[in-house]
Amino acid sequence: SLAGAVARWRQEGHIAVWLHIPILQSRFAAAAASQGFTFHHAEQGSSTLTLWLGEEPSRLPGYATHQVGVAGAVLDESTGKVLVVQDRNKTRNAWKFPGGLSNPGEDIGDTAVREVFEETGIKSEFKSILSIRQQHKHPGAFGKSDMYIICRLQPSSFTISFCQQECLRCEWMDLDELARTKHATPITSHVAKLLLYGYQEGFDKIDITMREFPAVYTGLFYKLYHRELPESYRNIT
Amino acid sequence: SLAGAVARWRQEGHIAVWLHIPILQSRFAAAAASQGFTFHHAEQGSSTLTLWLGEEPSRLPGYATHQVGVAGAVLDESTGKVLVVQDRNKTRNAWKFPGGLSNPGEDIGDTAVREVFEETGIKSEFKSILSIRQQHKHPGAFGKSDMYIICRLQPSSFTISFCQQECLRCEWMDLDELARTKHATPITSHVAKLLLYGYQEGFDKIDITMREFPAVYTGLFYKLYHRELPESYRNIT
Repeated sequence: SLAGAVARWRQEGHIAVWLHIPILQSRFAAAAASQGFTFHHAEQGSSTLTLWLGEEPSRLPGYATHQVGVAGAVLDESTGKVLVVQDRNKTRNAWKFPGGLSNPGEDIGDTAVREVFEETGIKSEFKSILSIRQQHKHPGAFGKSDMYIICRLQPSSFTISFCQQECLRCEWMDLDELARTKHATPITSHVAKLLLYGYQEGFDKIDITMREFPAVYTGLFYKLYHRELPESYRNIT
Repeated sequence: SLAGAVARWRQEGHIAVWLHIPILQSRFAAAAASQGFTFHHAEQGSSTLTLWLGEEPSRLPGYATHQVGVAGAVLDESTGKVLVVQDRNKTRNAWKFPGGLSNPGEDIGDTAVREVFEETGIKSEFKSILSIRQQHKHPGAFGKSDMYIICRLQPSSFTISFCQQECLRCEWMDLDELARTKHATPITSHVAKLLLYGYQEGFDKIDITMREFPAVYTGLFYKLYHRELPESYRNIT
């Protein structure tokens, strides 16, 4: 029995037990729960349960705590206009930057470019991160936390063809007007002012730029975002 | 029966079904799976299953995709020394900044301060974000993505009392030495150079600073991180 096995594992000095249960065998999750197991996580066709056996407080690792949303501030430098949308299905019609949730395994800049294209039909290229917001117990995140990142994008196409399902309106708006209008969400309004500062005095004043590094163990590359570091410091050895 | 209910829901034009199942009733998850339901997520004592009934591709929202790790680069400006640790249980002993995973609902800066204190016994205060790294299919994240943020912290205590369970070594090291040593992880080495640049030429060259804003609907405050925005731009109306 499971009760007997748990007693034996405890006696043998194990401090944690993990169970992986295919969804069609979920009756075992109920049986395990009656022995004190709880869900660690579940996805698609299986669940993972844990039981902490140690005397001291649990050191079981948690599971993913954040969803990541990314928006694109697409600025046409030749006209000083920025791409904005109004969501369909909102009580208050406020201008905001197009964006959405990142897909599993998707890089920040790729999410911004994809979401901008899906919502507005505009093609663009990632330039930098402008801002990062963290919110907890997010209503749209099943009680989890939300990380919302706004990127600066450079457009490579200009004819809007927006998604009627998601957007009520979509237009190229004077950046100066977006920075001043009352009809924008507070974060859009604030980041519009930041972008205006960069547009007028140089993007090097506002950009959080990206560099790629080789990961030690996997051989893959990872992206690191930070303020620009002069060559003379990068090459210190 | 569930099969009958699903047929009716489909006929009535519903496009998605959500089931919330207490862990002790998990046999219903198996029954639902045989009707095509899959796990959306599960936590502690309950699971949530979904079934997409729409003709078009699923628009079901995902679940949390990222864990957030935060480290603290604690610099004693009076000596130019920075707090570093070596993990116990690693094959290669490399210096790094103390840090760990954020708890549910915990702000970035609070995670950095808490983890630094738990690992090293040093008390500190959050000053800014220095860097953000995104990695996917992270081995320590059950295949989910990892967001790793390094913060600049200012120490308010200086006597090390490090956690023997987590750390092999802990010391105040010359920042200049950390920027040059081969015995540091690549990201530590890179951020040490960034911190050295800030220490020598002004932290305003490297900081991503934090401002608090009232959230529109909840009345709570949220934290927004971006480059410093001059007063003259902040007050545009």
